[in-house]
Amino acid sequence: MKIGFIGLGNMGAGMAANLLKSGHEVTAYNRSQDKVAALAEQGARPARSVAEACEGDIVVTMLANDDAVEAVTFADDGIIASLRPGGTHVSSSTISVALSERMTAAHADAGHLFVAAPVFGRPEAAAAAKLFVVAAGAAATLQAISPVFDAIGQRTFVVSEEPKAANLVKLSGNFLIASVIESLGEAMALVSKAGVDKNEYLEILTSTLFGAPVYKTYGGLIARQEFEPAGFAAELGAKDVRLVLAAGEALQVPLPIASLLRDRFLTLLANGGANLDWSAIGALSAADAGGPRPNA
Amino acid sequence: MKIGFIGLGNMGAGMAANLLKSGHEVTAYNRSQDKVAALAEQGARPARSVAEACEGDIVVTMLANDDAVEAVTFADDGIIASLRPGGTHVSSSTISVALSERMTAAHADAGHLFVAAPVFGRPEAAAAAKLFVVAAGAAATLQAISPVFDAIGQRTFVVSEEPKAANLVKLSGNFLIASVIESLGEAMALVSKAGVDKNEYLEILTSTLFGAPVYKTYGGLIARQEFEPAGFAAELGAKDVRLVLAAGEALQVPLPIASLLRDRFLTLLANGGANLDWSAIGALSAADAGGPRPNA
Amino acid sequence: MKIGFIGLGNMGAGMAANLLKSGHEVTAYNRSQDKVAALAEQGARPARSVAEACEGDIVVTMLANDDAVEAVTFADDGIIASLRPGGTHVSSSTISVALSERMTAAHADAGHLFVAAPVFGRPEAAAAAKLFVVAAGAAATLQAISPVFDAIGQRTFVVSEEPKAANLVKLSGNFLIASVIESLGEAMALVSKAGVDKNEYLEILTSTLFGAPVYKTYGGLIARQEFEPAGFAAELGAKDVRLVLAAGEALQVPLPIASLLRDRFLTLLANGGANLDWSAIGALSAADAGGPRPNA
Amino acid sequence: MKIGFIGLGNMGAGMAANLLKSGHEVTAYNRSQDKVAALAEQGARPARSVAEACEGDIVVTMLANDDAVEAVTFADDGIIASLRPGGTHVSSSTISVALSERMTAAHADAGHLFVAAPVFGRPEAAAAAKLFVVAAGAAATLQAISPVFDAIGQRTFVVSEEPKAANLVKLSGNFLIASVIESLGEAMALVSKAGVDKNEYLEILTSTLFGAPVYKTYGGLIARQEFEPAGFAAELGAKDVRLVLAAGEALQVPLPIASLLRDRFLTLLANGGANLDWSAIGALSAADAGGPRPNA
Repeated sequence: MKIGFIGLGNMGAGMAANLLKSGHEVTAYNRSQDKVAALAEQGARPARSVAEACEGDIVVTMLANDDAVEAVTFADDGIIASLRPGGTHVSSSTISVALSERMTAAHADAGHLFVAAPVFGRPEAAAAAKLFVVAAGAAATLQAISPVFDAIGQRTFVVSEEPKAANLVKLSGNFLIASVIESLGEAMALVSKAGVDKNEYLEILTSTLFGAPVYKTYGGLIARQEFEPAGFAAELGAKDVRLVLAAGEALQVPLPIASLLRDRFLTLLANGGANLDWSAIGALSAADAGGPRPNA
Repeated sequence: MKIGFIGLGNMGAGMAANLLKSGHEVTAYNRSQDKVAALAEQGARPARSVAEACEGDIVVTMLANDDAVEAVTFADDGIIASLRPGGTHVSSSTISVALSERMTAAHADAGHLFVAAPVFGRPEAAAAAKLFVVAAGAAATLQAISPVFDAIGQRTFVVSEEPKAANLVKLSGNFLIASVIESLGEAMALVSKAGVDKNEYLEILTSTLFGAPVYKTYGGLIARQEFEPAGFAAELGAKDVRLVLAAGEALQVPLPIASLLRDRFLTLLANGGANLDWSAIGALSAADAGGPRPNA
Repeated sequence: MKIGFIGLGNMGAGMAANLLKSGHEVTAYNRSQDKVAALAEQGARPARSVAEACEGDIVVTMLANDDAVEAVTFADDGIIASLRPGGTHVSSSTISVALSERMTAAHADAGHLFVAAPVFGRPEAAAAAKLFVVAAGAAATLQAISPVFDAIGQRTFVVSEEPKAANLVKLSGNFLIASVIESLGEAMALVSKAGVDKNEYLEILTSTLFGAPVYKTYGGLIARQEFEPAGFAAELGAKDVRLVLAAGEALQVPLPIASLLRDRFLTLLANGGANLDWSAIGALSAADAGGPRPNA
Repeated sequence: MKIGFIGLGNMGAGMAANLLKSGHEVTAYNRSQDKVAALAEQGARPARSVAEACEGDIVVTMLANDDAVEAVTFADDGIIASLRPGGTHVSSSTISVALSERMTAAHADAGHLFVAAPVFGRPEAAAAAKLFVVAAGAAATLQAISPVFDAIGQRTFVVSEEPKAANLVKLSGNFLIASVIESLGEAMALVSKAGVDKNEYLEILTSTLFGAPVYKTYGGLIARQEFEPAGFAAELGAKDVRLVLAAGEALQVPLPIASLLRDRFLTLLANGGANLDWSAIGALSAADAGGPRPNA
């Protein structure tokens, strides 16, 4: 397939490379051109504009946030304006439900097909084609582009015919991760103030009922107070919690733990922790219990 | 070893049976005598009083709550009064940190050894000798009674020389389970109001980042609204959250998610849900979002 | 002074009438023209467009929400486009801090003066010229238009040279009112479940430490479960809490009670209470405690 | 009347003095005898034991907390043991609902009459006989002892025939005050970070909708960061919130703002603020927003 790929960050670079390995023709665009050059060495055709990346059948976007996706989609020379009728936009970024709705409507008006396909997994999983793809859109479209998903992930979950549902599932996943961070932070503050070693405590948890990667990864970061460098920055975590709350507001679903997480992230940001790993909110309970603040 | 065992409920019956299978001499006591008879058929010596169960080297208690443990421990003919000097009391019940402290002091005064050894695992794990034991007490005592732990569990974690630390770890584990229930309840209320199937959603979670038993078990109960019969009743969950909060208060550790869980459990209890499974608090978010209340 | 007045709702009608009574020349505009006619009988000149209301020295806007203010301000034939250079826009609506910032910048670009002057008080106070005006803007501008404030209110508080500060103070006031509603709702749920009469309880509160109008008014509505007709609808309360949280987010100030209020309002809205008085969130605690939901 | 008075702290000393001024015969007891001597100069008969203070018709207790009240009531030579049959115990301390229940039962068993009569007001009001009395108990008993209330307060509210209801009303009042402190703390953190002066802000609030003493007093303390010396110490505030939550738990009434207050007080205590005025929790929002902690 002829695929345009826009956004060659930590995640996108690996995804685009895997599309190349699967034999697709990839035209790649990134705002900073050095990343394009790196991918060109693996066989990609470099694009100097968004429009150029829209010349094939499919264009995939993997960008940092709503603003970036909105820009490449709705600009005068953006995807809406450039993609041929019948072409497909696959949006893999973690964006708001509201923006996904706007994109769905605009692409329909332009005669395009539109699919939301955010992914679960960190950069290493992206590089290893081990992502989990959460896809939503018209069944026929999803069927037609399934080779794209096969190339980048280990499994694809189709959740709805409405693209925005996939975005919501992705956001809810980040909400659940943040909930784990906060609850671990509280539990560790409690047992460690009673003299129990945090690493041994975590070993108990993950050997018994909580043997999931999310507990091992984030529990370890909290136990070791290891918040730099950030795998996922607190300001991005704050953004995703805000988007979850916005989705909850639109659907009239109160989310008390998400509300609590919002206040935690704001506390972290207000005290200089925007660039710490988002697991640093897990250190705030210990601080409230009389310990040092995470960035002090 | 000559072991007394007090409390033959769903958990205790399996634990005592496994002590017998490992070749220990077990004298068993239970308030209702029919459970004693059942164990006697497997080789246990029936005891007609707490005092009779205290005639050996070790007495293990596995009871429902603080009141029951307090009664068998401190009654005029209870364990404190009946156990020989140098004997060991192994307390496996999920009890408050404060009661554990009182027991530690009283046993020391009486010349007894005292160990807290609560367990993680459900009745099936107790029957299969697959429990996880969280033990705390003097190192020599723990060493001496390790055959008891080997007989009932698959692994023993020693967390402290102070017995109460093991009780705190156990309580914190139940707090973390309740946190998972609440966060899953919120996430499911959100995505299902957007039209995503709850079972498919759970499949995504448990196939990716949240592949721990606690997500599978409780997520399934919430998705299927299957709150009867209770595996662990809401009123017991409410009690454990209260004990966690009490421990946090004594240690001056604020626990905002535990506070939220407290209010959830009270809402459930006040609306007739005391005997539902504790996962029913995971249905309150959907109710707040306009759905039916769990016990309606 | 020659004053345009845009927005003749319950509040605006009284304010405009008082400007007339004070001798000002008022040109009035409202989307539905019947309200304009009513004011014309009191001496106002009717305007058939926003532009026509912008022909004098000052234009006052008193509209329901951000969308309405944004429309009359930024439309092609709106205030920005129509007001003469040197003219002053007095924005008295309860709007977001973000919109106030945008208006400040746009008016500066257009050579206009801009003042935010939201008011505290209900329609009766507006009719009686008894409003409290919270004003912010350049000192000289505020000085120049002080006759406007004198005509509509009993007292003017100047809080900042930045207009948005006045909007924030107004929003924070509504947050404080909602906090009173929620805390009274909790306290009344508690004492009434113990058999204390809610009206007698309120009498104790307001006779002693809580003798402010906000306790009398809202406590009475909660005690009598009198949520219709709405003096201020729940959906407007929900909106203002959202705007407070948005302001807190922009300033990185966590607001845990506001977060809690947000969830309360969403619960009320999701259960059919959008048009009830906002004091109906004060009935949710009693519902959680086993009583009926406010709109059942 | 012949009245025993136990507890001559800041509040009790004023109350006992006013009983003397009204012509009653007062026998006074206090743990530290110097306060007894001071009152003896005003005409009281000094008692050297609780029992001696129980020789009249009525004994009033005004003590700091549950432990103190429990001790003087249930000790071997305490009130239960010493008061004559038909005598009345008037409990004015702020105590738990549970202890009030226990006292009610024990006094009934002993053939005593029992009334709960906690008061609203600070030491100056106690000295000036301006307290508000919240009384509960049998109607005939309340009638009989009304001269006591007339001597110490400006108004008496009878809330129930069950003594514990009066204790609950008193606790709920302290909960409402703490709610005001927290909400003011949040609002002030918000507006002051936007550059609004906190004292001017408070002036606006108290001149308009929030003109109650509680806003003026506590708002002023927060605005001036004036937390020492404590008028009412944070650890006492923490205790009362705990008692409110305990009452809510017994009645199955979730109290989310009280839960939040609990976490605030624990944060304050854990960071060295136990002896600050309880209004210091109103400084935690500003700290979370990046400012200094109240006791730093």
